[in-house]
Amino acid sequence: MDLQALVDAASTRDWDTDPEGTVSLSVVGLGNYARSVSIPAIEAGDYATVSAVVSGDAEKAARVGDVHGAVPLTYEQFAEGEGVDAYDAVYVATPNRIHLDHARTAADQGKHVICEKPLEATPERAAALADACEAAGVTLMTAYRMQTDPVIRALTSFVSAGGIGEPTKAMGEFSFPVLAGSKGPDQWRLDAELAGGGALMDVGVYPLNTTRYLLGADPVAVDAMARASEPFGSQPDDPESPRFADEHVHVLAEFPAGTVGEFTASFSGDADSWLEVVGSDGRIRLENAFVPGGDRTVRVSTDVGEVEFSGVGMDETVEEFDYFAHCVLTDTPPEPDGRDGLTDVAVSEAVYEAAATGERTPVERY
Amino acid sequence: MDLQALVDAASTRDWDTDPEGTVSLSVVGLGNYARSVSIPAIEAGDYATVSAVVSGDAEKAARVGDVHGAVPLTYEQFAEGEGVDAYDAVYVATPNRIHLDHARTAADQGKHVICEKPLEATPERAAALADACEAAGVTLMTAYRMQTDPVIRALTSFVSAGGIGEPTKAMGEFSFPVLAGSKGPDQWRLDAELAGGGALMDVGVYPLNTTRYLLGADPVAVDAMARASEPFGSQPDDPESPRFADEHVHVLAEFPAGTVGEFTASFSGDADSWLEVVGSDGRIRLENAFVPGGDRTVRVSTDVGEVEFSGVGMDETVEEFDYFAHCVLTDTPPEPDGRDGLTDVAVSEAVYEAAATGERTPVERY
Repeated sequence: MDLQALVDAASTRDWDTDPEGTVSLSVVGLGNYARSVSIPAIEAGDYATVSAVVSGDAEKAARVGDVHGAVPLTYEQFAEGEGVDAYDAVYVATPNRIHLDHARTAADQGKHVICEKPLEATPERAAALADACEAAGVTLMTAYRMQTDPVIRALTSFVSAGGIGEPTKAMGEFSFPVLAGSKGPDQWRLDAELAGGGALMDVGVYPLNTTRYLLGADPVAVDAMARASEPFGSQPDDPESPRFADEHVHVLAEFPAGTVGEFTASFSGDADSWLEVVGSDGRIRLENAFVPGGDRTVRVSTDVGEVEFSGVGMDETVEEFDYFAHCVLTDTPPEPDGRDGLTDVAVSEAVYEAAATGERTPVERY
Repeated sequence: MDLQALVDAASTRDWDTDPEGTVSLSVVGLGNYARSVSIPAIEAGDYATVSAVVSGDAEKAARVGDVHGAVPLTYEQFAEGEGVDAYDAVYVATPNRIHLDHARTAADQGKHVICEKPLEATPERAAALADACEAAGVTLMTAYRMQTDPVIRALTSFVSAGGIGEPTKAMGEFSFPVLAGSKGPDQWRLDAELAGGGALMDVGVYPLNTTRYLLGADPVAVDAMARASEPFGSQPDDPESPRFADEHVHVLAEFPAGTVGEFTASFSGDADSWLEVVGSDGRIRLENAFVPGGDRTVRVSTDVGEVEFSGVGMDETVEEFDYFAHCVLTDTPPEPDGRDGLTDVAVSEAVYEAAATGERTPVERY
């Protein structure tokens, strides 16, 4: 692939077979991300619609349902199968540790599932989630929006075609000041039990998963450092003070061919997101890499030349839901499937162990 | 320091007291770096001159001495004190593992020493080198040219004044295709015995030392991954085939306040050098960070604004020799002293141990 072909590919949807029909979704969990990013993306796309909305707060469900013309449901109603005929598939956007419950409900109802990342809070629960969907014969997609970003898809083809030679290392960061957000410490992302971890599970998974996708390979072992933290206002010396595992996390990930990934993520401090993949004959640098709907700036330098581009591609979250619906409509397994989501949870478990023990930790296979 | 003050500082030499006189140098070791970078820098500066040149090859010494009007010496002649009155100080630019021998000779002669980085191949030898200079009462500077780069010096003041808030992490890379160079595997940098290691000792020390300088702190423990390699043309399965420790190296370095540094260096693949320092309230990104005489591009974003600049400052190698001579002329201890150089060798030893054992390794104090 030459460099102009790369730019062209980064501007193009590469999987659309123009199928008939649409897939109606029940959106389970109406947090800020679901309301302000996912639902607008579903409505902006071609193949998916919002037909039900589920919240622990009946009033919120009614309010959001009203705006979007969707059946409002509480979690209990959803679990009991109320309104089950209103939707073909379920989008799980609840806190990580209850993904399994909602995905099981969906699978039991024979509904396809698109589940937010990370797939669950522990590998065991992520494996159970994937197993439940497989046993029910429903499609399961882990909602890795980077994998449906045309820029990332084009770069993945470019790397696998040898565009930068043999990959030697990858580096990436996603720092997002969750602690400084309007919700401060009052959110499930900072609850280690509900989230399964801290910055790694919430934002670190982006450079990790995107690198796995770009390299087409999975880490076999990790070294890691992490700093635990207390929510603002708590007393550091108070043993009752809730902690989350990693306000900052740093990972060295060994891939099978000897490629090493360096990933960092933070819940505080200066915000930024970028990714580099370095090979024997070239380098890719992505800026604004993981911001939802962000305009990626891509710089590629290889032994045949250099190119820098931005302002190409499409909103990857619109792509994500259209891709999922397309997979359902065409009975095609999604690329970011349950096993893909499970792998990142297994890597994360190894990272937390490595950070705690100071020992290189193999990634368990589940 | 506001952002315009930072740009102004990055353009300015901040240590010059305009002393009387010059310092004449004996350049020991006439490899490519000494001939094409260091000697021209010495001659371009104000306070140092080249008055002797020392090589294992008498003809080379004569040829180089002729061009620069300097007394030519062999290593034996230098060791025996021939031409000792021709110079005030000694610039040691030989392979790492013989720095100690040449520095000891200089110290015994009562000459001041500026010694290339890394200070030696092992911490024990680096400590002996520093001790020899201290016992002789001569000035010892480790030749960290980044510490005399006005851009780096200005950024260090900016960080220590709280310009980016509390530092949370640093990341940096120096990849330089030594293996693809004209000398290929035929150079001492690829001889683990002479060099003390591979990419880490030769280029990885740049992001490591520069981060230490910028943070004003030293790592206490490291995690690391490294890939050993064979020189081109050798047989991977041949036990006689010489290996060097790290064609690629990846380091997580824990600093006392919890700041973590991520450093990588390579002897092959795409060449680049960059450094980022991230804080609670801002971020510094340096591109073209460690190239000799390179035009650093600096991007600083803080809670008070953003600035990007390049094309400022002076050639840091000219600065380096002038700074050394200035320290000698004014009897001032250099910032990059023997202990500074020793610390990086001690960190490197810990990195190689961590890479080999897979265990977080404390940095020994020597």
